[in-house]
Amino acid sequence: MTDRSVVHSTFTIERTYNVSASSVFSAFADQETKRRWFVEGEGWQIHEYHNDFRTGGREGARFQFRGGPEIVNDTLYQNIVHDRRIVFSYTMTVAGNCISASLSTVELMQENGGTRLVYTEQGAYFDGRDGPKQRKQGWGKLLAALTNELGG
Amino acid sequence: MTDRSVVHSTFTIERTYNVSASSVFSAFADQETKRRWFVEGEGWQIHEYHNDFRTGGREGARFQFRGGPEIVNDTLYQNIVHDRRIVFSYTMTVAGNCISASLSTVELMQENGGTRLVYTEQGAYFDGRDGPKQRKQGWGKLLAALTNELGG
Repeated sequence: MTDRSVVHSTFTIERTYNVSASSVFSAFADQETKRRWFVEGEGWQIHEYHNDFRTGGREGARFQFRGGPEIVNDTLYQNIVHDRRIVFSYTMTVAGNCISASLSTVELMQENGGTRLVYTEQGAYFDGRDGPKQRKQGWGKLLAALTNELGG
Repeated sequence: MTDRSVVHSTFTIERTYNVSASSVFSAFADQETKRRWFVEGEGWQIHEYHNDFRTGGREGARFQFRGGPEIVNDTLYQNIVHDRRIVFSYTMTVAGNCISASLSTVELMQENGGTRLVYTEQGAYFDGRDGPKQRKQGWGKLLAALTNELGG
């Protein structure tokens, strides 16, 4: 048998934005907006992106970084509460190998005229191909890109 | 705004079976077998069950317990490694309210002529409607039913 392993780990990232919960929510819901902060970026070649933002809908991306292996993100929206909560599960596949499955929760809370975002990812990392430390760093960068999208 | 909350929690259950990993795996893969231990039972009225067991396939059940509210289980298989690993995400909905989303990993390891099963569930429980303690109890009963299915 091939050696198989699973590492389970949970991390949380908190950010505060000086805009309404509705504006933050829209940055996840609107396909064009989300594409800008979630998949576009220098060195990234995007082959496909779609975002059917509704409970039961799918989001998906297929891309490469500087000519590297093909990376596929396949997402299912599990639960959406307008302006409050987005729950989705997703897998990451690199060069045909599924490296992880995750359950992510985005919680939005109005606070002092702005919005606090709490991102929680419960992940299962497969066969030593990925881990929670890299994943948390990746989401740190994504939420920084969201900050830029929302006006800094 | 309605009060909204999420509790994140992970639990693990281990069981050992005196049969091959292949036999345990088949009890998850085969629709008729899985229906017997996973959804059938005294007092349960099953309205619908399907199990398209493949990576990307869906499993779903719609049922009631002794005339109670309708309960819906909606599952997506995220990663399957034959005879070794089954990863799926699922939501539970009771009377139209989504009470939880979970990421589950079933790992099978051959050990002393039998099979050790490690079940890990990383769950998000919504709005105080469910919690990890009840869920772990529920899976304890399911894995006891699997023991019976496999011959005790």
